[in-house]
Amino acid sequence: MGSGVDQLAINTIRVLAVDATFNANSGHPGAPMGMAPVAHVLFNKFMRFNPKNPKWLNRDRFILSNGHGCMLQYALLHLFGFGVSIDDLKAFRHVDSITPGHPESHDTPGIEVTTGPLGQGISNAVGLAIAQAHTAATFNKPGFDLINNYTYCFLGDGCLMEGVSSEACSLAGHLQLGNLIAVYDDNHISIDGDTNQAFTEDVIKRYESYGWHVLEVQDGDEDLAGIEAALKKAQEVKDKPTLIKLRTIIGYGSKQQGTHGVHGSPLKADDIKQLKEKWGFNPEQSFAVPQEVYDLYRKHAAEGAAAEEEWNKLFVEYGKKHADEHADLLRRQRGDLPEGWEKHLPVYTSADPAVASRKLSETVLSKIFDVVPELVGGSADLTGSNLTRTKAAVDLQPPSTGLGDYSGRYIRYGVREHGMGAIMNGLAAYGTVIPYGGTFLNFVSYAAGSVRLSSLSQIRNIWVATHDSIGLGEDGPTHQPIETLAHFRALPNMMVWRPADGNETSAAYYVALTSKHTPSILALSRQNLPQLEGSVIDKAAKGGYVLHEQQGADITLVSTGSEVCICVDAVKYLAEHHKIKARVVSIPCFEVFDTQSKEYRLSVLPDGIPSLSVEVMSTMGWERYTHEQFGLNRFGASGAYKDVYKKFEFTPEGIAKRAVATIDFWKDVPNIRSPINRAFQQLI
Amino acid sequence: MGSGVDQLAINTIRVLAVDATFNANSGHPGAPMGMAPVAHVLFNKFMRFNPKNPKWLNRDRFILSNGHGCMLQYALLHLFGFGVSIDDLKAFRHVDSITPGHPESHDTPGIEVTTGPLGQGISNAVGLAIAQAHTAATFNKPGFDLINNYTYCFLGDGCLMEGVSSEACSLAGHLQLGNLIAVYDDNHISIDGDTNQAFTEDVIKRYESYGWHVLEVQDGDEDLAGIEAALKKAQEVKDKPTLIKLRTIIGYGSKQQGTHGVHGSPLKADDIKQLKEKWGFNPEQSFAVPQEVYDLYRKHAAEGAAAEEEWNKLFVEYGKKHADEHADLLRRQRGDLPEGWEKHLPVYTSADPAVASRKLSETVLSKIFDVVPELVGGSADLTGSNLTRTKAAVDLQPPSTGLGDYSGRYIRYGVREHGMGAIMNGLAAYGTVIPYGGTFLNFVSYAAGSVRLSSLSQIRNIWVATHDSIGLGEDGPTHQPIETLAHFRALPNMMVWRPADGNETSAAYYVALTSKHTPSILALSRQNLPQLEGSVIDKAAKGGYVLHEQQGADITLVSTGSEVCICVDAVKYLAEHHKIKARVVSIPCFEVFDTQSKEYRLSVLPDGIPSLSVEVMSTMGWERYTHEQFGLNRFGASGAYKDVYKKFEFTPEGIAKRAVATIDFWKDVPNIRSPINRAFQQLI
Repeated sequence: MGSGVDQLAINTIRVLAVDATFNANSGHPGAPMGMAPVAHVLFNKFMRFNPKNPKWLNRDRFILSNGHGCMLQYALLHLFGFGVSIDDLKAFRHVDSITPGHPESHDTPGIEVTTGPLGQGISNAVGLAIAQAHTAATFNKPGFDLINNYTYCFLGDGCLMEGVSSEACSLAGHLQLGNLIAVYDDNHISIDGDTNQAFTEDVIKRYESYGWHVLEVQDGDEDLAGIEAALKKAQEVKDKPTLIKLRTIIGYGSKQQGTHGVHGSPLKADDIKQLKEKWGFNPEQSFAVPQEVYDLYRKHAAEGAAAEEEWNKLFVEYGKKHADEHADLLRRQRGDLPEGWEKHLPVYTSADPAVASRKLSETVLSKIFDVVPELVGGSADLTGSNLTRTKAAVDLQPPSTGLGDYSGRYIRYGVREHGMGAIMNGLAAYGTVIPYGGTFLNFVSYAAGSVRLSSLSQIRNIWVATHDSIGLGEDGPTHQPIETLAHFRALPNMMVWRPADGNETSAAYYVALTSKHTPSILALSRQNLPQLEGSVIDKAAKGGYVLHEQQGADITLVSTGSEVCICVDAVKYLAEHHKIKARVVSIPCFEVFDTQSKEYRLSVLPDGIPSLSVEVMSTMGWERYTHEQFGLNRFGASGAYKDVYKKFEFTPEGIAKRAVATIDFWKDVPNIRSPINRAFQQLI
Repeated sequence: MGSGVDQLAINTIRVLAVDATFNANSGHPGAPMGMAPVAHVLFNKFMRFNPKNPKWLNRDRFILSNGHGCMLQYALLHLFGFGVSIDDLKAFRHVDSITPGHPESHDTPGIEVTTGPLGQGISNAVGLAIAQAHTAATFNKPGFDLINNYTYCFLGDGCLMEGVSSEACSLAGHLQLGNLIAVYDDNHISIDGDTNQAFTEDVIKRYESYGWHVLEVQDGDEDLAGIEAALKKAQEVKDKPTLIKLRTIIGYGSKQQGTHGVHGSPLKADDIKQLKEKWGFNPEQSFAVPQEVYDLYRKHAAEGAAAEEEWNKLFVEYGKKHADEHADLLRRQRGDLPEGWEKHLPVYTSADPAVASRKLSETVLSKIFDVVPELVGGSADLTGSNLTRTKAAVDLQPPSTGLGDYSGRYIRYGVREHGMGAIMNGLAAYGTVIPYGGTFLNFVSYAAGSVRLSSLSQIRNIWVATHDSIGLGEDGPTHQPIETLAHFRALPNMMVWRPADGNETSAAYYVALTSKHTPSILALSRQNLPQLEGSVIDKAAKGGYVLHEQQGADITLVSTGSEVCICVDAVKYLAEHHKIKARVVSIPCFEVFDTQSKEYRLSVLPDGIPSLSVEVMSTMGWERYTHEQFGLNRFGASGAYKDVYKKFEFTPEGIAKRAVATIDFWKDVPNIRSPINRAFQQLI
């Protein structure tokens, strides 16, 4: 048992969680009540942070991977003096509060990453720990141990069961991330009841198999000294991440403690009453915080503020000796790119040879890799296919492997797409790196859970998603995306790019890298694509533009990526065989095009003539831009890519046939209206 | 080393893989060359199958989880006499062949499940093994050991790194699946090179932590006796799945053996020459099979055919003693449902109370659970939220747990959505059960990799996807789907249902269960929904219908699920406040509606009046059906659901406002054309 004020603080956290969930008539009191002791010890005895500057670079990071227990975190943020007030706690789970049902990093000071979807937080923590190790290796100098923070993470059974955490934690062991410390809330309860129904594996042994240092604390409810000793021991092991298996009782203090009844529903009024009485709180009061608790925590907060001040002085000294690094670190934290970086983006003319856009992406990366040192790349074991590794890159590896070091900027993720996605979110959240990661477009779907969270939490990262269509050929339908672009185009705050040639690829990287709060997926071809007449970086950067204009055109062909060049050929075919005039529009990115003025968009997709979209996958979403759609609403085929394109008629002839049908179908409609015209604006 | 003919058979498999990849100028020779020895021993000494009837119920199942090595499997299928000819091998990776780049179960005899996307096959194998245990427990009787097949699976490093396999294998250990035997091809090579770059965990220890029986064979290239002994030992352990860690050299026999150079590219001509010469093959010949090898394998095939004949006799005897079970098993294998089952689907009138559609789903399940005994349900640890467990259900558990038995029909999947998806695919592939599984709609995305494969491989299973929108309320944006319906609606051969009330929920189940070759996702509300005037099971089963007709209507409101009832209220609001006449259309399932005649679809969405869709998520895809769209192309909010709906104006007033704007915007357009009219048909 803790001393008086320690126990009071712990019970205060519990009572706040109980009051807030009761007040919201919704939420999860059980985990906060069970984890309050370890949270108290961790936050008050170990963690270094300054609530007045929650963005201090060298702060310790805390991730609540079991995000449903967020009242634990909100209570701590409030008690330590972050920008979360008692009124914010009262607004828990109310519309437009900063205390939503699961923690969201973009709105709430002190929340590092957005959690709730299980398994993500611990995997983000791996990313944060990698970023710490990398930033330390890059910037620390003799006498300047500038970056040495820990990353702490709480997680529950659910997080351990999710495959994404298996992927990330296996990699964390390989990478020997000594500053990563995770606390597993072993409370034996999940929503379905006792974990013995589905989760009987030996967690300790599993984490040891990953190369983690594993500790156990048998009594997480009362044994504060044991918790403290374990955290201390965890800090001391420098070449392995640590998992502390902490046995707790969910909903500790409730009449229903230890059952799933306290997991996801507020406690009953009488239960709250007995609990407050038992712990010396006034049962008539809600959201009451004893002054001693404020005093205790604000003292620790003040120590954190002082620590930051010390650090700031160190950083000033650092600037005197290492001016470039100092400036670089400041710039990175602002999210700005190095001045003039964009001049290194390759520019093409139509005289340049045809090249696969995955290869064009490689060229961009190799041109800017040195200029933008915060780029940290990788691939889920498809480096040679994704072309994500520049020749100069060093692998990010523990030095003991002899394969690289922590200052390396290329991560071998292994075949772990979901883990890679979540780790990239963590890398980006650290504040000093911009992550990109490669896989086949089809397998970005494996990471859908993480991709969605990068959009929601407004993170800048980049998926280098090659082999973007049936154009990958022989690997066949299991690898050929059909639904994937529609999926991610429907995701808010996600830029899906599908560049048609070199200039469009440069534009995609330009916008992806300069959009500080939006992730991107770059869909890139396996097959060669010609450099198009009319493609210009600036135009492509608008998301959509007229590639080929024609006076008195009969139809607009609208396309993306590898089909744009076929549309260009179709223009000739239509002229020769049908005396039809066609113009060509390229829309490499819907989301960016949508942000242009209506006037501009109407100039690209004008009234008066019908339009036909051409893209070798699901037509879903194209109705927003075109009158008719040529796509592939079925699975593809395994064969040489030209054979596959021919099978599905993605040829100049196949396009022309449908263009003729489109013109014919729309010829009797007077004043054809562009789909850009809408009756009302969408909510944003 | 094996005896002459054994070694010859092994080398024949290797040479066929080499020839086929060379001929295709594409593919993966390395894994087939490395795994040929274990494949030979397994197929020729252990596996029981009849190539002439690849659907024999009690056959041993073989899954190639590292599906890129499929030339191994195609070669075996050919050599043993399945319906895969030498010409089929020559057509490897050619358009419209039955030998695509990765194995596809719907096209190729002898392929049990579609693999290639890594981690899926081993997880399917877990499903197949569960189905075997369940079918055995359900149908075996004293003297009738009818169902006792093994499930064998080959997998590589990639499969082990993927989280989906971690999820499924942890559950497999818990479930003590003794008849599951997996062989891990430990060849130290992945696409990026040596596995020491990213995959240094202790696999043996990890699988032991899951509760598996783990064996090692050090020389998988030459030690046929060791392989045989390991497989024998694996068969003997009846209460644990077995993993055999088999050390092999990738591309064994090639000049580049043991490097990633042989992983994903054909061998060079001179390499093939030396290899054929070394093994006594004529280097001038391709696709040549020594007669001794055919003889050896066809002998084993004949033994398999005889075994089936014996089994058929046993089954006839079984039928005499257990006529009902006999008939039931035959019926299940045909994929037919019990006669008259559909009479148990609940029917509602508008006088019935408002109920959440997740609860309506529970009612359907409880009414049909006894009548359709092949239904095997479960949830990814959200049973109480998904309402997937009927009161009468017994858990599918190893008897030793005391929590159920293998004949139980409810699976506690744990928090493992992706694993659940892949296991459901395996369950369905076995041929005797129809799986359904619950999670929140938002987390079906975690399983996107498996969901896509159920569509591609034409499997019947059902996702009970509750909490289907911002209507889930307080859990907030991390849990509120926005892009999810668009994602899965864009997936070919997937039915996404979003029923509006009880009759529509019954219709969704009716179509889902009677569609033998199409999976379904049922998106179900957390909040209560009224029983609608005008909803009828037969109409809803068409995928879309007129819920509320109105002569001389000014607008059609088109909606799904929980928004249909708000549209009904908006009709009244429009009449009262704007003197506008509106009709209401419900489209619970796009995919099914799309299969109706054009005449019918035009009767639902007629020419002449404008239409407005209303759905509380991404509008993507709705342009295909309506002129204007009211949706949510942004993330949601955490709060009571009514507050959230109000915030985003999904109220009768909010809909009315947009209906007025729609009518106004379209009033000058003569002969408004329904979006159902298209210039040309899509390829199917």
